[in-house]
Amino acid sequence: MSYLRKNIDAMKGYTPGEQPGEGERVVKLNTNENPYPPSPRVVEIYRQTDGSRLRRYPDPMGNKVRDKLAAMFAIRRENILCGNGSDELLSLATRAFLDEGDVLVYPTPTYSLYPVLAEIQAAQVLEIPTLGDFSLPAGELAGAKANLMFLCNPNAPTGVFTPVEAIGRIAERFSGVVVVDEAYVDFASDNALRLAKTLPNVMIFRTLSKSYSLAGLRFGYAVGAAGLIEGLAKVKDSYNVDSVSIDVALAALEDEAWMLGNRGKIRSERTRLSSRLAELGFVVTPSEANFILAAVPGGDGQACYEGLKRRGVLVRWWNLPRLADKLRITVGTPEENDALLAALEQMKREVAP
Amino acid sequence: MSYLRKNIDAMKGYTPGEQPGEGERVVKLNTNENPYPPSPRVVEIYRQTDGSRLRRYPDPMGNKVRDKLAAMFAIRRENILCGNGSDELLSLATRAFLDEGDVLVYPTPTYSLYPVLAEIQAAQVLEIPTLGDFSLPAGELAGAKANLMFLCNPNAPTGVFTPVEAIGRIAERFSGVVVVDEAYVDFASDNALRLAKTLPNVMIFRTLSKSYSLAGLRFGYAVGAAGLIEGLAKVKDSYNVDSVSIDVALAALEDEAWMLGNRGKIRSERTRLSSRLAELGFVVTPSEANFILAAVPGGDGQACYEGLKRRGVLVRWWNLPRLADKLRITVGTPEENDALLAALEQMKREVAP
Repeated sequence: MSYLRKNIDAMKGYTPGEQPGEGERVVKLNTNENPYPPSPRVVEIYRQTDGSRLRRYPDPMGNKVRDKLAAMFAIRRENILCGNGSDELLSLATRAFLDEGDVLVYPTPTYSLYPVLAEIQAAQVLEIPTLGDFSLPAGELAGAKANLMFLCNPNAPTGVFTPVEAIGRIAERFSGVVVVDEAYVDFASDNALRLAKTLPNVMIFRTLSKSYSLAGLRFGYAVGAAGLIEGLAKVKDSYNVDSVSIDVALAALEDEAWMLGNRGKIRSERTRLSSRLAELGFVVTPSEANFILAAVPGGDGQACYEGLKRRGVLVRWWNLPRLADKLRITVGTPEENDALLAALEQMKREVAP
Repeated sequence: MSYLRKNIDAMKGYTPGEQPGEGERVVKLNTNENPYPPSPRVVEIYRQTDGSRLRRYPDPMGNKVRDKLAAMFAIRRENILCGNGSDELLSLATRAFLDEGDVLVYPTPTYSLYPVLAEIQAAQVLEIPTLGDFSLPAGELAGAKANLMFLCNPNAPTGVFTPVEAIGRIAERFSGVVVVDEAYVDFASDNALRLAKTLPNVMIFRTLSKSYSLAGLRFGYAVGAAGLIEGLAKVKDSYNVDSVSIDVALAALEDEAWMLGNRGKIRSERTRLSSRLAELGFVVTPSEANFILAAVPGGDGQACYEGLKRRGVLVRWWNLPRLADKLRITVGTPEENDALLAALEQMKREVAP
């Protein structure tokens, strides 16, 4: 006999990408982490930590960071919520907008956390496959009978970026709330901030995990209409972001130049890596994120994933329709990318006659 | 028109205790924070923060801390879950064990977050008043038709400690899961760890916020049967505790002696403050926590709260049945407690003929 709710008992839970043990030497291109460290200002904040402040509760809303973001985006504090990573914001959205039996809609393939969050909330999912080139089925999404839509843009694991105007047209017709999950947006050519500022049913969720090199910090933020933000705030834990993290997030955002520098290097490597993979026979989906989805020559994604792993290079592979023949490769430093390419070349030579 | 779920739209949300602005000089005895700073080892961890580690995701389960706790309590890693404060654990429990319409039972008065969490989950609450001396209505609790029970022990805001054997007898008869919220247990004479180790339906939730002086950190942990812990783990965000916090929590737990030293000082001040309040005409509920619930002479709790606030002393007052004539006073340093007592004496002289 189980004390758990039936849906919780039955569910499998989300599987994060594998993390090698401390000290293990691998080229880690499997979880879309930034290969460059965060701003030195971030480390400075940790160094200056005042023990006696830690005995006090944090500011429940992280207003310092909200005010910084409000100034950056020319909006008000009330349009912003701080979260313990954007994963927390996604969870809050399901809890604020989905009753038991309500419907969450999203295009597939996408971030595999979405169905897990719906399952926890005992909500239904409506999965609408993307087209052959992984572009959005705009009409079907806009007309979906659902309460909440998650649109990851650029999408994971495809890297495909949907033009913001197309998302605007979907949101204007959709009857529920649209969350544009912009975890990777700093690597793209545009973003949906203007939709979150003008449309009553659109929020954008962002994170410092990727572009700001702070996956270890857990900090994300939501931008949207005050009423939507207030709804998320009611559902969150009182003190969801800790005192030091609030200061660290502020320091990171104040050093946007550092992030932009790293972004530049990653984008340029994304271009180089995409070309080199194509030369090796991979079919590369054009990416606006910090990773590349590439179909393996011959189509055996698993063998390629395992071959790379044996050679000390970790990438991500899913045994799922439309993905099993592909690898998702995080863009690393030039040296890491060279290590990946060298391993692939070696594997190619070995199978050659 | 609102996009929110009806229950979220209608709810007011939890109100944290007021926090004075940075630089404001008040004697702050209103939110049960520890008056002493955390272990110097904690500050050392922040000082040693390695920026390049922050770009990586944390260990999803915080296994370093789980293993430390497992050794401390002679249990297994599988019996422990790390949380972003024990507030997160309480929220996870409602999500893992309460379906829409299910029942959460707890004695009143108690931590005012409990009904908020039930409301978010669209669950019902069954509130059972404590007896005149704030002791538990054991029979009613044990027989309650409910899926989940929250028992805060020592209770907030009363400070009353229920003997562990009495809780064991309730849990043995109760048909659902019993969470013993031990946020304040380090200030008490006993704890329910042995119940969590032996009964299949009992978990204890603890926090480093109070006894370890780390309210600003957000770290809590749950102990219980592996099946219950696994249920909570399925519901939590993948990376609910950040990398630095995992290391900080470990350092704090490794310096238990520091915590015990502060606890000793607080307990001794609790005794002194209780006696002095009694001498001033307060009726003091015997407390095993780091705060004291005391009925104001004359019964006007609000006037006393406001008088203290004008004199720069912040305590907590609720306009609620059985509490409106009382103040909840956090035990501070000897100097802070003296400031409170001096203000009360001054107020007494002013109203005297």
